[in-house]
Amino acid sequence: MDRIGIAVQRFLTGGRSAQEVVEESLQKILDPQGEGPRAFISSNSEASRLTARWLDACRESLPMGALAGVTVSIKDLFDVAGEKTTAGSVEIAARSAPAVKDSVLVARLRAAGAILMGRTNMTECAYSGIGINPHYGTPSNAFERSAQRIPGGSTSGGAISVADGMVHAALGSDTGGSIRIPAALNGLVGYKPTADRYSLQGVLALSRSLDSAGVISQSMDCIRHVDRVLASVSTPHPEISSINGLRLGVLTNLVCDGLDQHVAENYARSLSALSAAGAVLTDLHSQAVQDAVGCEGQPTMVSSEAFSEFGLLVSQPQHRMDVRVAARIGRGRDVTATKLIQVQRIRASCRSQFLRESAMLDAWVMPTVPLVAPRIADLASDDEFFRVNALMLRNPGTFNFLDGCAVSIPNHDPGSAPTGFMIVGPAGNDEKLLAIAQALEPVLRRDASLRA
Amino acid sequence: MDRIGIAVQRFLTGGRSAQEVVEESLQKILDPQGEGPRAFISSNSEASRLTARWLDACRESLPMGALAGVTVSIKDLFDVAGEKTTAGSVEIAARSAPAVKDSVLVARLRAAGAILMGRTNMTECAYSGIGINPHYGTPSNAFERSAQRIPGGSTSGGAISVADGMVHAALGSDTGGSIRIPAALNGLVGYKPTADRYSLQGVLALSRSLDSAGVISQSMDCIRHVDRVLASVSTPHPEISSINGLRLGVLTNLVCDGLDQHVAENYARSLSALSAAGAVLTDLHSQAVQDAVGCEGQPTMVSSEAFSEFGLLVSQPQHRMDVRVAARIGRGRDVTATKLIQVQRIRASCRSQFLRESAMLDAWVMPTVPLVAPRIADLASDDEFFRVNALMLRNPGTFNFLDGCAVSIPNHDPGSAPTGFMIVGPAGNDEKLLAIAQALEPVLRRDASLRA
Repeated sequence: MDRIGIAVQRFLTGGRSAQEVVEESLQKILDPQGEGPRAFISSNSEASRLTARWLDACRESLPMGALAGVTVSIKDLFDVAGEKTTAGSVEIAARSAPAVKDSVLVARLRAAGAILMGRTNMTECAYSGIGINPHYGTPSNAFERSAQRIPGGSTSGGAISVADGMVHAALGSDTGGSIRIPAALNGLVGYKPTADRYSLQGVLALSRSLDSAGVISQSMDCIRHVDRVLASVSTPHPEISSINGLRLGVLTNLVCDGLDQHVAENYARSLSALSAAGAVLTDLHSQAVQDAVGCEGQPTMVSSEAFSEFGLLVSQPQHRMDVRVAARIGRGRDVTATKLIQVQRIRASCRSQFLRESAMLDAWVMPTVPLVAPRIADLASDDEFFRVNALMLRNPGTFNFLDGCAVSIPNHDPGSAPTGFMIVGPAGNDEKLLAIAQALEPVLRRDASLRA
Repeated sequence: MDRIGIAVQRFLTGGRSAQEVVEESLQKILDPQGEGPRAFISSNSEASRLTARWLDACRESLPMGALAGVTVSIKDLFDVAGEKTTAGSVEIAARSAPAVKDSVLVARLRAAGAILMGRTNMTECAYSGIGINPHYGTPSNAFERSAQRIPGGSTSGGAISVADGMVHAALGSDTGGSIRIPAALNGLVGYKPTADRYSLQGVLALSRSLDSAGVISQSMDCIRHVDRVLASVSTPHPEISSINGLRLGVLTNLVCDGLDQHVAENYARSLSALSAAGAVLTDLHSQAVQDAVGCEGQPTMVSSEAFSEFGLLVSQPQHRMDVRVAARIGRGRDVTATKLIQVQRIRASCRSQFLRESAMLDAWVMPTVPLVAPRIADLASDDEFFRVNALMLRNPGTFNFLDGCAVSIPNHDPGSAPTGFMIVGPAGNDEKLLAIAQALEPVLRRDASLRA
């Protein structure tokens, strides 16, 4: 059984109280030697303890939800009633009032018995795949911590909160890879659903066309546990009994350009392992991917929509925004309506094309990102920052533009730099994707506990 | 029974053959003394006659559709298989190939047994409410023909084809009033449905956000006959037995500014008549209307979307587009993506606001347009053209922006300048609107045959 399943079971059977779980979580979050102070922008120990006490008191007398006793972190762009939503921005924090009510997803987690441990750090306004935050600090990657590698973004704090065992799962968002990049770089599982699967009500927007909420956790089992709550699904997920005969499209264009050697080796090994396990792999060029990249659809759409959200902020002469984020938002200033309309049309036709191309496949596969996490210090120059950022966003962002769903699963050897293997389906195929990803996970993973 | 009902009945019972109907229609369309040569851009006598012969031959042996033996005209932006779609533009005509298949609505009309009599003239690209076309001529308004008043646009030829008895009904489109304006100015009934009620597949777009197809005919009965076919509705429309107690919101802001005296008098008389007949009239200010007009939503959206359709055409140094149409399209060139996104957001909130404001009403009422048709010669100066055009579009266009549905019904005395009374409902309330309009029609109309 997975960690979340075990946690729920232990809580329900009285093996471990919610209060014990919360104390352990708080100890990690608040440890001044750990990454907690940078992974979290705020945590509310009193509220978490109160929830735990309430859960313990009611456990035997009230029906308990599907995530009873499970700890979660909330990316700081989902509204939580009574708290400010900062989006990792001191400017936004200074202007915002405490939220009047929970965002829909936070309310669903609460109602299912999950314990909210705090609001996680992120790239300001969720606008980069790197995860550096000049205002609230940058949590270091879980791999070779002393080397101070980037956590990946924008759900930087969410990934570290899971990687360091502070919480069972992180609620995050993904506009161009912000769930999948930090999952891949920290050896975690990340799930970006089709955008309309999870409600975005009460969530601060970066790009209303491309944003989707998502989850980072330790395994597919955990992801599926949380997905049932977030998607409010009452029927069981489908299950796939064998990967024998599964038809996987190995995407050949774009996604393997410029792979670093470690990523390339792990990817090749994963493909061999899947093939040996009976999956039918076919190299395939995708015209939808080609056209999506050719029109610069994802960056054009994000920058113009982001400017419509934050244009007033970055247009102030002395704003306190991260200059790199402000620069990216500023690119949206001069996008014409005609250009945006053109990109929206190309998107509609690429989306249909991607559905056609996917018709005879069970899923597409590719590396999540082409690089391993560089050191934070290596991105000191803007040129290098923007170069690495564009590479990190390239593969995942294409599928936000194509309105797909995707999962990143770790495929590196324990002790080596984490890498991710991405499994992608077209819009609306989430339940099938989750079943396939769960079936592939033991073949892909190299950590003993989850290997086949 | 209405004209279309009678026509179908006479055809089905053998009282009048489809061939007789077509010959009479062709005689009017092809009469060099009439408006046919300017109302139609093209007509295909052979195809119409073939359809009629087929209908007559099959009448007793095959099941006949709901519009069997009914003549219709098609605005020249709906694709008809094998013919070019010109959109009233010599530039577009020169570049386009014959359509491979019928637009969805044309196919539905055909399948229902309607006889297509030809393609009607229009403002080039459907981009004005006036109806002047420098390439294919401008049909004169049905009122005081020798005075050569504007037909209203953009469905200019469609309105004249019905007003002059050439066809039973005209298929047109409405982005800011292009069905309702020519209906009002020519003493006809015009129906602009909620945009998503009628398919726009195979229709040349002006503004994909605001376009809707629609119908012009002689009476509400006729409109409802055609609506059942275009909307592919199989259940009967609802009926309203009495207007006693109907709650009508008399819109007070915007729509009565600058009414000409004849329009104002007819409008006041209509309101009195409705009140006397038992309707409950309440003067109401609409914040949704105020905000829609305040953000210049309709013109911003149309110009930017039109530029994305026709920008390449009007950017050619020596194009042959109507200079006024080209000028309006050109306004979209410099709209920023941010401005368009802002207008789209305001639209979403105005639409919700309009739904809330409409909750306790059965319908809204107002004058369709504030003016009677001026002479074509009076619009020789661009200033006067753009001034009158803006006034004509003002009332109807607001409800394209609010995503409403609307009907214009004639409310003038026979022999006087035609005026229209507009009945409006929020998105999706089409069947209710049609039932209400049918119930109000005998109270509003002053022509003997249709008066209560």
